[in-house]
Amino acid sequence: MPPAPPLITLLTDFGTRDWFVASLKGVILTINPAARIVDLSHDITPYGIAEAAYCLQACYRTFPAGTVHVVVVDPGVGGSRRPILAKAGDNYFVAPDNGVLTPIVGGGQPVEIRQLENPRYQLRSPGATFHGRDLFAPAAAWLTKGEALASFGRVVTDPVMLDWPRPVRDGSAIRGQIVYVDRFGNLISNISLADLPCDQLERMTMTIGGRPIGPLVSHYAAAASDVPQALINSQGLLEIFVRERPASELLSVGIGAVVEVAG
Amino acid sequence: MPPAPPLITLLTDFGTRDWFVASLKGVILTINPAARIVDLSHDITPYGIAEAAYCLQACYRTFPAGTVHVVVVDPGVGGSRRPILAKAGDNYFVAPDNGVLTPIVGGGQPVEIRQLENPRYQLRSPGATFHGRDLFAPAAAWLTKGEALASFGRVVTDPVMLDWPRPVRDGSAIRGQIVYVDRFGNLISNISLADLPCDQLERMTMTIGGRPIGPLVSHYAAAASDVPQALINSQGLLEIFVRERPASELLSVGIGAVVEVAG
Amino acid sequence: MPPAPPLITLLTDFGTRDWFVASLKGVILTINPAARIVDLSHDITPYGIAEAAYCLQACYRTFPAGTVHVVVVDPGVGGSRRPILAKAGDNYFVAPDNGVLTPIVGGGQPVEIRQLENPRYQLRSPGATFHGRDLFAPAAAWLTKGEALASFGRVVTDPVMLDWPRPVRDGSAIRGQIVYVDRFGNLISNISLADLPCDQLERMTMTIGGRPIGPLVSHYAAAASDVPQALINSQGLLEIFVRERPASELLSVGIGAVVEVAG
Repeated sequence: MPPAPPLITLLTDFGTRDWFVASLKGVILTINPAARIVDLSHDITPYGIAEAAYCLQACYRTFPAGTVHVVVVDPGVGGSRRPILAKAGDNYFVAPDNGVLTPIVGGGQPVEIRQLENPRYQLRSPGATFHGRDLFAPAAAWLTKGEALASFGRVVTDPVMLDWPRPVRDGSAIRGQIVYVDRFGNLISNISLADLPCDQLERMTMTIGGRPIGPLVSHYAAAASDVPQALINSQGLLEIFVRERPASELLSVGIGAVVEVAG
Repeated sequence: MPPAPPLITLLTDFGTRDWFVASLKGVILTINPAARIVDLSHDITPYGIAEAAYCLQACYRTFPAGTVHVVVVDPGVGGSRRPILAKAGDNYFVAPDNGVLTPIVGGGQPVEIRQLENPRYQLRSPGATFHGRDLFAPAAAWLTKGEALASFGRVVTDPVMLDWPRPVRDGSAIRGQIVYVDRFGNLISNISLADLPCDQLERMTMTIGGRPIGPLVSHYAAAASDVPQALINSQGLLEIFVRERPASELLSVGIGAVVEVAG
Repeated sequence: MPPAPPLITLLTDFGTRDWFVASLKGVILTINPAARIVDLSHDITPYGIAEAAYCLQACYRTFPAGTVHVVVVDPGVGGSRRPILAKAGDNYFVAPDNGVLTPIVGGGQPVEIRQLENPRYQLRSPGATFHGRDLFAPAAAWLTKGEALASFGRVVTDPVMLDWPRPVRDGSAIRGQIVYVDRFGNLISNISLADLPCDQLERMTMTIGGRPIGPLVSHYAAAASDVPQALINSQGLLEIFVRERPASELLSVGIGAVVEVAG
């Protein structure tokens, strides 16, 4: 069996209307024609660094070891923020050093971070506005050709880290918040199954923004209609939803809304 | 010449903003790194089972024999609806048993359907909300590695079938309906060329929602401006359109609108 | 090392909601299973020929030599406009002859253009409305299998060309226009670095639609907040933007807006 082809994913706020994403792919395939490219998402809210960080940590583990994940949500492009490359566990990440890798490099696994400064792995270009094409895509492509981490640039020991909200315990209650709203309007909190009292899940009372949530169910179709309910989702997180309707709109809440659970 | 690489298509209502589609791809490429993945669409209206069924039947025949088509429009995920695998003719389909395969398994070609119940081909996961990632994607990937249909689970003989609207004849008239509205606002009916009186196509009179439609033309640019006209489209179906404008908006009609043709 | 796999890009106004793009991919992979397909964009404004032409010229050079670029923005499909194939420099282009290849075939590189008329490279289909699937995709796939240009059809010497706006000089001033608005609302003009007085870039005064623009900066994050400023972008063009906000909305200007630079 031949070795698995090298795999690169792309996560950006470029949208898919313009030619930006295609430029990254062209650059990658020119450097390494064997590379295979998967779109993680290009519809991150413009300049949405925390949103991109959330998406990345939610799915990168489904990819094979050795995958190179490129993240370009980069309002500071061309300025003093460093372009970096991180090896975390068995995976590689190429991104601006603006906190977008917070859950990756702060997650407890062994990490080596390098600054992208070797001009050999960069394209020359008229402006300083498209590092996705000129810096990040080439670095990813060269990585899949086996270039050593050390050859890209100096070690970085102080990557920028975002505040990453964690739930807090208050007596027997837990207070968390909504950290993501998905395409269906489902509200994903930062409270995980491990935070909850396992022996009394069915007796918990829950609120979002002070409003009561119906009891925990096992899956979406088990909920009553038009009533906000909760479940443990596929990431193991407490998620508030309304059956087949957008909870975020119906409840007028979004990222940052407070979720409280009393055991 | 090496054999064609295994091919998997994905058709979902996940949208492309979140990490959901990428998770499916990561799972597939972890199980079978040689698999090639094509997006059929991810912008099906949320929970739009009939819309997905329509899209699938409209294009699956353009793919090579042996392609595995994965459909995840699944409001009942985690509940009692069965996850299934179907071989229909030379193609494979992996989907929830909610009717989304109606035109495939009801189309007259030889069909074998199996329930997905072998845990060997499933991912373990905290919740029961993401069968796309945990059940359907792995099944598709294992299929492309040559696993036998029988190893996935028991035979299913009673798949859920949607009512699939067909045109009705009323004397010399034919009454059909709009079954799809495309990105351009073109209105696609369920009346096919075979339903029409071939010897007098130019003399037919047509209405949509009771309003008259101009005469049949051979292609879009042959129509007058700002007037609804009809043509036989690339699927052989009667389609109502307004030249370079969205007919659905201009006529305020959509899926279900009645189309009548008098010979 | 095996030869690079054949590469095809797709640029259309089909959107990604319907099955249209997938049909092209199915057809290509049926004809040449080894082909690799990259989406350039499918969200061109419907019937936006000039917009597609702009996107294509902005990124095709990032792809490897020998890439086949398919463009299907084709309001005249099925009518008298010719389907064509162009070899320009080391690259191939398949498109309707409606001007969408203007910057490619009018750019000064050696060009050979052929009409697509050999039925061997076409699919038979009920209507005349989907040449993307029936004509352009097959031609691209056959090209990647090594078919000679001459076998597709007769030479075309008079391709349709769009008016392609160029900046004009008026004394020491330059008058250009906005030719593209990107996903971020940034306004891209047709004035290039080469048009500007290099020795006094910092002293230039600029207006858009008669309103003053702040001084030229080197990158987005170097601009003040809420003030339109300009930079030389990654294509070497003068671009007007507002830091992390949509300039097109804030200034209420779009394609065609006049940009004036006084040295």
